[in-house]
Amino acid sequence: MGDAPRTGPDPGAAEEARDDDRVWTVTEHLQDILRHVRPLEPIELQLLDAQGCVLVEDVTVPTALPPFDNSSMDGYAVRTVDVTGASEEYPAVLTVIGDIAAGCGELPVVGPGEAARIMTGAPIPPGAEAVVPVEWTDGGTGGGPAAGMPAAAQAPEGSGGEVRVHRAAEAGAHIRARGSDVTVGELALTAGTVLGPSQIGLLAAIGRGSVRVRPRPRVVVVSTGSELAQPGEVLTTGRIYDSNSFALTAAARDAGAIAYRVGAVADDAATLRSTIEDQLIRADIIVTSGGVSVGAYDVVKEALSQFEVAGEDGSPAAGAGGRVEFRKLAMQPGKPQGFGRIGRDRTPLLALPGNPVSSYVSFELFVRPAIRSLMGLDPVERETVRAVCPQGIRSSPKGKRQFLRGRYADGVVTPVGGAGSHLVKALAHANALIIVDEETTSVEPGAEVAVVLLD
Amino acid sequence: MGDAPRTGPDPGAAEEARDDDRVWTVTEHLQDILRHVRPLEPIELQLLDAQGCVLVEDVTVPTALPPFDNSSMDGYAVRTVDVTGASEEYPAVLTVIGDIAAGCGELPVVGPGEAARIMTGAPIPPGAEAVVPVEWTDGGTGGGPAAGMPAAAQAPEGSGGEVRVHRAAEAGAHIRARGSDVTVGELALTAGTVLGPSQIGLLAAIGRGSVRVRPRPRVVVVSTGSELAQPGEVLTTGRIYDSNSFALTAAARDAGAIAYRVGAVADDAATLRSTIEDQLIRADIIVTSGGVSVGAYDVVKEALSQFEVAGEDGSPAAGAGGRVEFRKLAMQPGKPQGFGRIGRDRTPLLALPGNPVSSYVSFELFVRPAIRSLMGLDPVERETVRAVCPQGIRSSPKGKRQFLRGRYADGVVTPVGGAGSHLVKALAHANALIIVDEETTSVEPGAEVAVVLLD
Repeated sequence: MGDAPRTGPDPGAAEEARDDDRVWTVTEHLQDILRHVRPLEPIELQLLDAQGCVLVEDVTVPTALPPFDNSSMDGYAVRTVDVTGASEEYPAVLTVIGDIAAGCGELPVVGPGEAARIMTGAPIPPGAEAVVPVEWTDGGTGGGPAAGMPAAAQAPEGSGGEVRVHRAAEAGAHIRARGSDVTVGELALTAGTVLGPSQIGLLAAIGRGSVRVRPRPRVVVVSTGSELAQPGEVLTTGRIYDSNSFALTAAARDAGAIAYRVGAVADDAATLRSTIEDQLIRADIIVTSGGVSVGAYDVVKEALSQFEVAGEDGSPAAGAGGRVEFRKLAMQPGKPQGFGRIGRDRTPLLALPGNPVSSYVSFELFVRPAIRSLMGLDPVERETVRAVCPQGIRSSPKGKRQFLRGRYADGVVTPVGGAGSHLVKALAHANALIIVDEETTSVEPGAEVAVVLLD
Repeated sequence: MGDAPRTGPDPGAAEEARDDDRVWTVTEHLQDILRHVRPLEPIELQLLDAQGCVLVEDVTVPTALPPFDNSSMDGYAVRTVDVTGASEEYPAVLTVIGDIAAGCGELPVVGPGEAARIMTGAPIPPGAEAVVPVEWTDGGTGGGPAAGMPAAAQAPEGSGGEVRVHRAAEAGAHIRARGSDVTVGELALTAGTVLGPSQIGLLAAIGRGSVRVRPRPRVVVVSTGSELAQPGEVLTTGRIYDSNSFALTAAARDAGAIAYRVGAVADDAATLRSTIEDQLIRADIIVTSGGVSVGAYDVVKEALSQFEVAGEDGSPAAGAGGRVEFRKLAMQPGKPQGFGRIGRDRTPLLALPGNPVSSYVSFELFVRPAIRSLMGLDPVERETVRAVCPQGIRSSPKGKRQFLRGRYADGVVTPVGGAGSHLVKALAHANALIIVDEETTSVEPGAEVAVVLLD
């Protein structure tokens, strides 16, 4: 973050990609992206702001837990010798010298024949060796075994008088010893830990109000296309609703990012360039959809093949620039893809194809790993499982890795919809991607396939 | 939401619970909570605000998708008869009558011997029956097969002149037919669907800018205890750091809620009551920790057994009130629990025990299902799996359901830490709860146990 330019070489593909005909594999494109996306610089965040983030420091324990011997029960702190042999029939009768509530700073000394009424979590007073739970006593009432203590505010007399103890207690009984959870200097959490609720709880318990983590990346999502209308608007001839900017923004959030939806930009290279230039200030990564293929109006390609950030006088700023490489990938859907690093900070930009299914699949394969890589999360890719495909797959293009939408449950996957990259309903009813590798052109009914689970 | 009081009877347990000695099972307590927690009233939310929420309407399709026949490729829209028999050696030579970009409103008519240059997603013009991809043509250059189109801004001549087509095309080739994804009146998504990225994409694609969903519940988290210090503060004698309010707030967010951490309140019934009364305005559910056991300073119990919201004149407001029932559960940890509905809107309140492990386990067992129930999510409970426990479990209290912390991987679970409800480090290194049921007092090494997965 900050002003320091990201380090590392520009996309190594620059040389090779000048050969327009080179077709990249899915793996090559992903590796090129991951080689150029570095984890974000760590920052100190308040505990609850660090939820879901990766810790970058080994956290050692500054204060033992518990910090002092304390009671694990509501009861009476006693000397063991005073309750030896006690029973309900022959109780040990002790003088109650006061209350020790949790948070109590000044402690009475428990002398021979004495007891202090003590609450769960309160410090064990000097002289006492054990706690007898209130249920093992008459609770100071002079009656039978107590079920509990009356509220001190209503019954102040409970902190004095006598208590009858009905059972003996060994030294240390119902006492949580200082350091029995963690000791000073012990490693509480190691660098690389993802902070969930219980890790945040541990950090709070040892007194850490803030920690050093890699922050969530800020993802700026821009869809392109003069045909795009906003949902809710009336559709005029030739137009469709912008869905990519919504789906990609939601997907970026799901992946752990802070996502900003810029919305749709018309097919005009200058407008697109200035929009992206504008957004760079709040972007750790930029994702565009559309305009990356071979058409005459594919302005993402036009605008980003060379990228110069203007200085204040309008001329290219020193150290700015960068470029985006456009490639053909051996995959379906998602053949045309762009990747590069632009602007002063060399902010990664992934240019995805515009068909809704293509852009969604491309997000899963390339943007999600990039986001996880920025966060320092590992692994960056989703889990792949094997599943039986009862229907089989009739045909898949040779030499391309195909990603079909499917519904997965209990080891079985069913393709939904066809291969068309415009089928958004089928996508919305899928929970998995079926991978048909480059060498496979059909799958027999009942055979196993590789599946990426999306939920 | 709004001002309408929640309907449904007050906790049915009210009568029975007067018997202080009654011990509830985990299942009985959960069922009592779920019986009294109703899904929140639906509201209309903008698409991206509805992410993760449950749709409460069946959404039908108002406009077909695609809304018009359109090209799936960058190429030329042609009449099939004009390209019959075309080859690279004997190309069909057509007059290019103009460009059709995506978003184009006015379409030229393609007459005999004519072609319109067309971009992916652009409407098929009248007269044309198929699209030939640019790679099947010379791209208007008079040379060999084209790899793509030059940008229209740089090469405006591409929208005129002649094009040589090298291959025939059947009617409908490279055309995505109107309604081939969804048709008007079709059901896009059914009520009950959880809105993830691809469902949000579908809703946008059919023009829905907002949808009716159950909102995320607002959870107010209050920890209690005069011993609690804020992380980052210096610890004085007898005090410990507040960790529950952090862990529970993070856990509530993980469960899908909007969580507000109020922090720690000292053990004073009036302060606690007024804090909770204050917070009711922004709470769909309130969670407290601590103060629910049998001690003399258990102020949650004291403050909430009867609850009156004051009116403007300080007297109890009409229709306000409610109460929280305090119970003993046959579980370890987490024996003392409170549940009720308070205030004018009968807002559910779950009072959890204060030991960090007890409060975390109680959240998992009771609060998380309550949050999911408020959201209308199903199932409300986490998945339970069977796992082999190589170490076995030496002893577990008869008649209580015990929840031990464990690390689960690949069908094997290893207990971490002991049964002590103060062991927050072990909790932070666990990813599962091992359930030892009421009848089981030990588990043989290598036997199977039930496990709740927490990740």
